[in-house]
Amino acid sequence: MDVGFIGLGHMGSGMARNLIKAGHRVRVWNRSWAASEDLGRDGAEVVAAPGEAFDADAVITMLSADDVVREVILDQGLLAGAHRGLVHVVSSTISVAFAQELERAHEAAGIGYVAAPVLGRPDVAAAGELNILVAGRPDAVARVQPLLDALGKRIWPIGDQPHLANLAKLACNFTLASAIETMAEAFALARRYDLDPQILMEVLTGSLFAAPAYKTYGPMIVEQRYEPANFKLPLGLKDVRLALEAGEAVGAPLPFASVLRDNFIDAIGHGDRDKDWSAIAAVAARRAGLEAGR
Amino acid sequence: MDVGFIGLGHMGSGMARNLIKAGHRVRVWNRSWAASEDLGRDGAEVVAAPGEAFDADAVITMLSADDVVREVILDQGLLAGAHRGLVHVVSSTISVAFAQELERAHEAAGIGYVAAPVLGRPDVAAAGELNILVAGRPDAVARVQPLLDALGKRIWPIGDQPHLANLAKLACNFTLASAIETMAEAFALARRYDLDPQILMEVLTGSLFAAPAYKTYGPMIVEQRYEPANFKLPLGLKDVRLALEAGEAVGAPLPFASVLRDNFIDAIGHGDRDKDWSAIAAVAARRAGLEAGR
Amino acid sequence: MDVGFIGLGHMGSGMARNLIKAGHRVRVWNRSWAASEDLGRDGAEVVAAPGEAFDADAVITMLSADDVVREVILDQGLLAGAHRGLVHVVSSTISVAFAQELERAHEAAGIGYVAAPVLGRPDVAAAGELNILVAGRPDAVARVQPLLDALGKRIWPIGDQPHLANLAKLACNFTLASAIETMAEAFALARRYDLDPQILMEVLTGSLFAAPAYKTYGPMIVEQRYEPANFKLPLGLKDVRLALEAGEAVGAPLPFASVLRDNFIDAIGHGDRDKDWSAIAAVAARRAGLEAGR
Amino acid sequence: MDVGFIGLGHMGSGMARNLIKAGHRVRVWNRSWAASEDLGRDGAEVVAAPGEAFDADAVITMLSADDVVREVILDQGLLAGAHRGLVHVVSSTISVAFAQELERAHEAAGIGYVAAPVLGRPDVAAAGELNILVAGRPDAVARVQPLLDALGKRIWPIGDQPHLANLAKLACNFTLASAIETMAEAFALARRYDLDPQILMEVLTGSLFAAPAYKTYGPMIVEQRYEPANFKLPLGLKDVRLALEAGEAVGAPLPFASVLRDNFIDAIGHGDRDKDWSAIAAVAARRAGLEAGR
Repeated sequence: MDVGFIGLGHMGSGMARNLIKAGHRVRVWNRSWAASEDLGRDGAEVVAAPGEAFDADAVITMLSADDVVREVILDQGLLAGAHRGLVHVVSSTISVAFAQELERAHEAAGIGYVAAPVLGRPDVAAAGELNILVAGRPDAVARVQPLLDALGKRIWPIGDQPHLANLAKLACNFTLASAIETMAEAFALARRYDLDPQILMEVLTGSLFAAPAYKTYGPMIVEQRYEPANFKLPLGLKDVRLALEAGEAVGAPLPFASVLRDNFIDAIGHGDRDKDWSAIAAVAARRAGLEAGR
Repeated sequence: MDVGFIGLGHMGSGMARNLIKAGHRVRVWNRSWAASEDLGRDGAEVVAAPGEAFDADAVITMLSADDVVREVILDQGLLAGAHRGLVHVVSSTISVAFAQELERAHEAAGIGYVAAPVLGRPDVAAAGELNILVAGRPDAVARVQPLLDALGKRIWPIGDQPHLANLAKLACNFTLASAIETMAEAFALARRYDLDPQILMEVLTGSLFAAPAYKTYGPMIVEQRYEPANFKLPLGLKDVRLALEAGEAVGAPLPFASVLRDNFIDAIGHGDRDKDWSAIAAVAARRAGLEAGR
Repeated sequence: MDVGFIGLGHMGSGMARNLIKAGHRVRVWNRSWAASEDLGRDGAEVVAAPGEAFDADAVITMLSADDVVREVILDQGLLAGAHRGLVHVVSSTISVAFAQELERAHEAAGIGYVAAPVLGRPDVAAAGELNILVAGRPDAVARVQPLLDALGKRIWPIGDQPHLANLAKLACNFTLASAIETMAEAFALARRYDLDPQILMEVLTGSLFAAPAYKTYGPMIVEQRYEPANFKLPLGLKDVRLALEAGEAVGAPLPFASVLRDNFIDAIGHGDRDKDWSAIAAVAARRAGLEAGR
Repeated sequence: MDVGFIGLGHMGSGMARNLIKAGHRVRVWNRSWAASEDLGRDGAEVVAAPGEAFDADAVITMLSADDVVREVILDQGLLAGAHRGLVHVVSSTISVAFAQELERAHEAAGIGYVAAPVLGRPDVAAAGELNILVAGRPDAVARVQPLLDALGKRIWPIGDQPHLANLAKLACNFTLASAIETMAEAFALARRYDLDPQILMEVLTGSLFAAPAYKTYGPMIVEQRYEPANFKLPLGLKDVRLALEAGEAVGAPLPFASVLRDNFIDAIGHGDRDKDWSAIAAVAARRAGLEAGR
C-alpha cells in the first residue's frame, strides 16, 4: 500500500521501518529532520510537510500527545484537504475526550478513521511484535489490516467506536502502573523486615503473577534500576491523568489512580523526571524510611 | 512420619488427607467433631485434645487466625508439654507480630518451629498443589520436608526467620487484592463508556497480565459472579489489615492497602460479607453509578 | 472612579452594585443581556462589547473560569487595545497556570494587572462583606484600592505576584472542602452508632472548631440539606482540580485533595450536580451504608 | 465528695489537683510512685493499691490506653470488689469496642459507669478548663456532676450510652488531625510557590477558620515548631487507628483517616516519634521536595 507516516519518535521510527520491510511504499514526516533522514536511508520517501503524508491510501499518526496531534493534524486543516478514500490510523496515546473530538472531525471531513494505540516498548515496536488495540468502522479497519499486520504480532479488536481503543489503552497502562505501585509497596515493606525483595519477587512471578508485567518491572524495582528509561515518569503521569480525566467525564472515581497520580508527582518532584516510570517505587521506599541503595 | 494435624477447615482437611495418602501416620484434632470424624473415615487417628496431636514427630497447625492459635496452642501450654524433638509447622495466615511471638515461645520451649503459610484455595489444597512459603531453621525445615512435599507442588524457601514467611504471605495477598481492585476500577470505567469489560479483560490476560491472578479474578469481576466464595471478604480484610499492621510496626505506609481497607469495609458494610473477596469490585461499580447487573 | 465590570453572575452583579453605591461610574458588560439590563436599572451604563468596559480607569473581570476569561479577554485582543493607564482587576477563580499567563500578557501589553479573588457567597458579595485576596504591583493595587474597599470588608494583601492570590484562593477552598469531607466522615460514623450528629456538631463548633466554616457547613451536613446550592458541586470539583494541578506543576502531591476529587466525582456521578458542594457528604453516608434521610 | 483517682500522668495530675482545690477528699493511685507523692504534698491521700481508690463515692480513671485500663481495672477484679453505690468515671481515650466491654462489665458488677473523655492539653487540664464529653445513665452522671464541674469549663452531654462519648472524642481528634493535614498540604503547596505560609495562615484564621484548632496548629506548622510536644505523634496515630477501627466495626470507611494513618506512620518512621502530632506536616513538606527549614 501507499502509506504516510507522521511521527518518527522512539516508537514511530521502528513502526515505519516495519511497514517498509513489509513492502509498503512509505512517506514519512517528522518535526525534526534527523529522524526523517534516517528513515530516508532505510527506504522511506521523506516529505516536507505533513499534508504530503496524507496523499496516500492510508496515513498513520504516532505523535506524543493531544496537543501535538491537534497542532499537526487539525490546526493545519489536513483532514479537510484529504481525499475521501483515505483512512487515518491514529496510534498515539491520547485522551478519550480528544479521541471523541477526532472521531467527529473525521466524520465531518468524510474520511476514514481508525484508532490503533499500541502496547509495547520501542524494542518491541522495532521487532514488529506490538499488541495493537484497534477500533473503528469495520470497512476502515479492513482496509488498513495489512498495515496493522506489519506492525504487531497481535491485533485486538475493541469495537466500532475508535475512542474505546484509547480508553482500553489507558486502562492497560493504569493496570501496569498499579502493578508497579503494588510491588513498590510490598518490596519496601519486605526490605524494612530485612526480607530480600528478590525472594518475594520470585514467589510472585513464579506463582500467581507469572506474567510479563511483573517479570519486567519486578527486577527493576528489586534492583532499583530505573535507567535507562523505556517509558519516562512524566509519560506515566500523563497516562494516569488521562485515565482520571476519562473517569471524571463519566462520574467514575478511580482511587488507585489518585494514589498513583500523587506518587508520580512526588517522584518527579524529587528529581526523577528522566527515569523510567517504575521509579515511582522510590517513593514507597523513601516514605518507608529506606534511602536509595539501602 | 508420625504427624499431628490441628485445624480441619476447608484448607486443613484437604491437607491432612494428602499426608495420609503419602503414607504418614496422621493424628487429627479439630474444634468441631464432625470434621475429625470425616478424616477418621479416611484413615486418620482422631484424638480428643490438641495436646495429643503434639505427641508426634511433627505437628501441623492450620487454624484460622492469631487468636485461635493463641487459644488452642499457647494458652493450653502445649509447647511446654511437647517433647524436644518435635517440629511445629504453623501454616495459618497470622500477623507478623504474633509470628514473632510464636518464634520466641518455641525458642523458649526448646522445640522446632517452621512457618509454612500456603498460597491456594481449598481445591488446590485438596489436590496437593499448593505453593508453600517456608521459613525456619534449616534443620527444622529439613525434618518436615517430606510433609511439605506431600502438601504442595512447590516449596518456596523464605529464609531462617519463620515470621518472614508470614510477611511474604501477607505481601502475596496484598498483591492479589491490589490486582482485584485495579481490575474493579478499570472495568467500572470501561462499563461507563459501554466498553464490554470482557474485551478489556481479554486484552490484559492475553498480553501483559497473562497470569493466574488475572485469569482467575478477571472473569469473576466481569461477570459480577462473587458466589460461591472461595475466600470471603472478611478474610481479605483481615489480611489487608495484617499487612497494614506489619507496615505500621516498621514505619512503612502502604497507601494502596489503605484504599483496599476502605473498600473492603464498604463492601462488607453493604451486606456482601459472605461473598468472595473479589466482591470489592462491587464498590468501584457502585461508586461509578453502576447498579448491580447493569 | 470610572470603572468597567465584566461578568454579572451571582457574584458579579452584587459586586457591581456595590461599586455604584460607592459612587463610582460603572460600565457593565455580560454575555447574557438580562443581567446587564438589571444593572442598568440600578444605575450602571450598559455597554455592547467587553472592549467598551476597558475604556475606564480600571476594569474588573468576574467571569467563571479560565476558558471564559481567555475567550472574552485574550482572544478578542482587549489587552492590546487598552490604554496604558488602565488597571485590570481579575476576581475570577482561575488556575495558577492561567494566572501566570495573564501576568505575562498584561506585562507585554503594558497595562496594570491585579488579582483579587474573593472569599464569600453571593449574599456576602451583595452585602459588600467579601474577604478579598489581593496581589499585584503596589502601584497598581493602590490605584484600585477604592474599588476593593467598596467590594469587601477585609482586604488581604498576598504580595506582588498576582498569581499567588489565585493560589491562596485555591488553598482556602481546598481547606473548606477538607473541612466538609472531615465532617462528612465523622457524622456518617456517628450515625452508624446512633449518635445524633447534631450533638457532635455542637461539640465541634462549640469548642475547637468555633469558626464560620464549620458553623456554616456543619448544619447542612447534619440536616442533609444541600439545596438551594450556594456553590455547586462541579464548581467545588473545579477548584479541587485546580489545586491538584497547581501541586502537579511544582511537584507537590496533595493526598487529601485526591480523595476530595474522587468524592466530588462520585457525588456528581450520582446525580447531585445541582446541589451544594457540601453534598459530597452524601458520598461518605452512602459508603457507610446510610441511605439518604436515614 | 470522697473520690478516688487512678492515673496521674500529664493530664491526670492536674485534674486530681483541681478536685482537691474544689474541696473533695481525693485518694490517688499511680503506677509510678513519684507522681503520687507529688499529689500527696498537695493534699491527696496516697493509696498503695488501685483497689483502695475504689473505696469512695466515685472513682476517676485517667489511664493512657485500653490495655492499661484492662490490666489495672478489669484484670485485678476491682469492679467485682466495689460497693454498689460507686460511680466509676473513665476519662481515658479508649476504643469504642473496649468502651462497650466496660459498659457490660460495670452493668454485670452492678456499679455506676460514666464515660468522660476530655478535650484539652495538660495546661488546660491544670487550669480546670477542659471540655468534657459525658455519657452515661442520668442518675450516675448526676452523682458525679460536682466532680465534672471541678474539672472542666464546659460539660457536653452526649447521651445515655457511655461508649458514645468515646466515639465523639475520637471524632474530635480525627477532625483535629484532618485540619492539621489540610494545613500541612496547603502550606507545603504555598511554600513551593514561594508564597509565605504565614500569609495564608493569617487569611484562614482571620476569616473562615477563625477557631482554636487552626490558631493553635497553624503557627506550629508555619514555623515547623514541633517541639516541645503537647500530644505526641504515636498518640495521634493511636486515636486515628481507633477511629478507623470504630468505622470498621460498623462498615463505615473513613478515607481521610486512612490518609492520616499513612502519614502518621511515615512521620514516625522518619524519626519524629517524640514530636508533637502536628509534625505529620513534615510528611507533606518532604513529599513536596521541601527539606526541613527550607
